[in-house]
Amino acid sequence: MLVRDGMVVGLGTGSTVAWTIRAIGRMIENGLDILGVPTSYQSEALAIECGIPLTTLSQNPLLDLAIDGVDQIDMRMNAIKGGGAAHTREKVVSISSKRFVIVADGSKYVEVLNRSVPVEVLPFAARVVEREIIRIGGSPVIRQACMKDGPVITDNGNFVMDVSFGEIRDPAALAREISQIPGVVEHGIFTRIHELHLARNGNVEVIRRDDL
Amino acid sequence: MLVRDGMVVGLGTGSTVAWTIRAIGRMIENGLDILGVPTSYQSEALAIECGIPLTTLSQNPLLDLAIDGVDQIDMRMNAIKGGGAAHTREKVVSISSKRFVIVADGSKYVEVLNRSVPVEVLPFAARVVEREIIRIGGSPVIRQACMKDGPVITDNGNFVMDVSFGEIRDPAALAREISQIPGVVEHGIFTRIHELHLARNGNVEVIRRDDL
Repeated sequence: MLVRDGMVVGLGTGSTVAWTIRAIGRMIENGLDILGVPTSYQSEALAIECGIPLTTLSQNPLLDLAIDGVDQIDMRMNAIKGGGAAHTREKVVSISSKRFVIVADGSKYVEVLNRSVPVEVLPFAARVVEREIIRIGGSPVIRQACMKDGPVITDNGNFVMDVSFGEIRDPAALAREISQIPGVVEHGIFTRIHELHLARNGNVEVIRRDDL
Repeated sequence: MLVRDGMVVGLGTGSTVAWTIRAIGRMIENGLDILGVPTSYQSEALAIECGIPLTTLSQNPLLDLAIDGVDQIDMRMNAIKGGGAAHTREKVVSISSKRFVIVADGSKYVEVLNRSVPVEVLPFAARVVEREIIRIGGSPVIRQACMKDGPVITDNGNFVMDVSFGEIRDPAALAREISQIPGVVEHGIFTRIHELHLARNGNVEVIRRDDL
């Protein structure tokens, strides 16, 4: 059992981890005593709907566990997140957690990361960041909103660029490069994942990383 | 003469560069034809007051020149900025400029940087960033506002931490470390400065860096 009484638990964003949040809600109905830290307005609303008592990183900056979904994860447990534009808060919550667990289905598990990397950027700096991203080999597109004119605005009030880099052979090195571009708030490359719960062929396989 | 007809010029923030902005205003009265890109609400207001036509990084992402002040600068042209909490926009403007010029008086020029480093952080992540900053050897204090209760809020809507690291022997390495902390928007270490105009002993000395 991942979640135990007394824990403070980071609650990820997206459709896969929503199943986990609902399961935690049922455990709370049955007496489980935890506090949750949401990673987005979406996960906050779902947690409230499921009756999970919430806290914040300001009150509890060290979490016992964080559980989240993923857009793509490779065999060395590097991942790309941010399809839902929540990767900035998700990453802050993940590095605040003693244990960061990803839940995913087999379609997310790949040999080499190759999907586009979401990058949250300060709006006034968007064109400058675009140029710097191209300089390091990426092809950026500012994500456009639906149900709102113009670009997507994140929960932090910023833009998101989806940046294609082709195959990403060294995610940690690329992560360092993107982090150093002024105007970048946070990118969607995650390199500190302790555990992957992978649903495939009707089973859930648990893969652990011991070097973190 | 730094500023010439047809240039797009980044306009820094603070009391020293305000003299430069006023001087540019007088040159515009005398026929100089440039566009300015402000780095803060303050420099925008001053530029408007001085009659400098303005543009944005969205319209002009590549500037000919940016001029700014500094809180401290060392003999290898590394600097600390952000006493006015404007360092995020200042840095984006500086890296967008073919030539980044600092104007400073002799009191800012030191052998080794040792003043506190301003770090802009996402408010929800403040305590997590504090912990990570301490882990890499810094002592952070969230800057408190005057004329407003609670912390300073930047022009981008975030907090600022002033982080003491003692003497900073390797500013570029420290800059890389801080940039990689999730929740950090931008730190005040500047390592890409082309030219320093240093007022001391009644003269203005121009110091250039040729390796950039």
